[in-house]
Amino acid sequence: MSRAVPRLAGLHVIADDSPDWRLGPVDQARAACEGGAAVVQLRAKHASDGEVLRWAHEIRKLTRDAGLLLMINDRFDLALASGADGVHLGQDDLPLGRLPAEVRERLLVGRSTHSADQLRGARSEAPDYLAFGPVFGTTSKQSEWSPRGLPALREAVALARPHPLIAIGGIDLARLAELRHSGAAGAAVISAVAAAADSTAAVRALCAGWLEAEAAG
Amino acid sequence: MSRAVPRLAGLHVIADDSPDWRLGPVDQARAACEGGAAVVQLRAKHASDGEVLRWAHEIRKLTRDAGLLLMINDRFDLALASGADGVHLGQDDLPLGRLPAEVRERLLVGRSTHSADQLRGARSEAPDYLAFGPVFGTTSKQSEWSPRGLPALREAVALARPHPLIAIGGIDLARLAELRHSGAAGAAVISAVAAAADSTAAVRALCAGWLEAEAAG
Repeated sequence: MSRAVPRLAGLHVIADDSPDWRLGPVDQARAACEGGAAVVQLRAKHASDGEVLRWAHEIRKLTRDAGLLLMINDRFDLALASGADGVHLGQDDLPLGRLPAEVRERLLVGRSTHSADQLRGARSEAPDYLAFGPVFGTTSKQSEWSPRGLPALREAVALARPHPLIAIGGIDLARLAELRHSGAAGAAVISAVAAAADSTAAVRALCAGWLEAEAAG
Repeated sequence: MSRAVPRLAGLHVIADDSPDWRLGPVDQARAACEGGAAVVQLRAKHASDGEVLRWAHEIRKLTRDAGLLLMINDRFDLALASGADGVHLGQDDLPLGRLPAEVRERLLVGRSTHSADQLRGARSEAPDYLAFGPVFGTTSKQSEWSPRGLPALREAVALARPHPLIAIGGIDLARLAELRHSGAAGAAVISAVAAAADSTAAVRALCAGWLEAEAAG
């Protein structure tokens, strides 16, 4: 099998270690790889660092073989230690200016945003991509932010330029077309994969839906 | 005021963010600096990364001015981002071999151990110092390990050589002399400072007690 070229645009599968999911993070990541996603983001809020590192190590092998990028949520120490491609930071994580230059050179950096103000602030840090949401209502993640909606997403895409914007929050197959038409470079999902009866099939359907919307747009 | 030369040996004050303490971590660190400790280790288990980074930034200023080393518990990303001198790792944190070389060059690294086996394993990683405990019974930290006692500490000092060994767990003024005579290079405290009515006076007394034991030894 020839290796795909890793890319930021497309489907981001957030491999999450909440005990609520049917699959653990490594199996969620495997589904992402088998189903053709672009990015796996490992988001571990419950496990010890040692356990997260063991997961990251396994997911690094899977994503490398399948040509997906691997991002680690919040922690650039674990990203460096696992050989991940990058780190995805929230609003209350490190300012990018605090990343040592040699770390910045080695890692892609994404930043979550929830408002126009946060987008402007994050854009000035020159991350590799921005995320925006929750676009729709979601139960996967406690958020202090109400659903932003599609008009706000379109505004976010414009504010983020030239940075690619990844939409997140309550995204499922039925909503992919309108997301894609808003100009988002990608869509990030948790429950649409982690809670699916067949996670690989869910990833495959989401990727096909995304490509279809792209072709139609 | 001339600046002291930072050193690893002596009193390590663990500035802890448990809500149980009378003082927050920045004020615990201030007491460490004013009282003449050798090292502040910031140990934050409750706050967001952004908050920890703000604390680390303040404590970095205090420790630099007073000539103390600043270590960050568990997280080398926060250590790098705050300009700390090093990172203190637990047993289930990163293996040192996973630290990128340029990170290892920039940071001192300490490793917690609780048994002879863990000491042998940790020594083979060549950290800058080792910690061992709990030597006595402690209420500051949930530990799966029972108090190790002074004979085990003496054995630990021998096993750790040539690495300096820092004793931790249930340490107070009355126990400093026997600790020092066991050959430990330093003693780490939490509640003896954080729960004291006058934390600066407590640090000062502990440092004086340590020096006295050293002179007597």
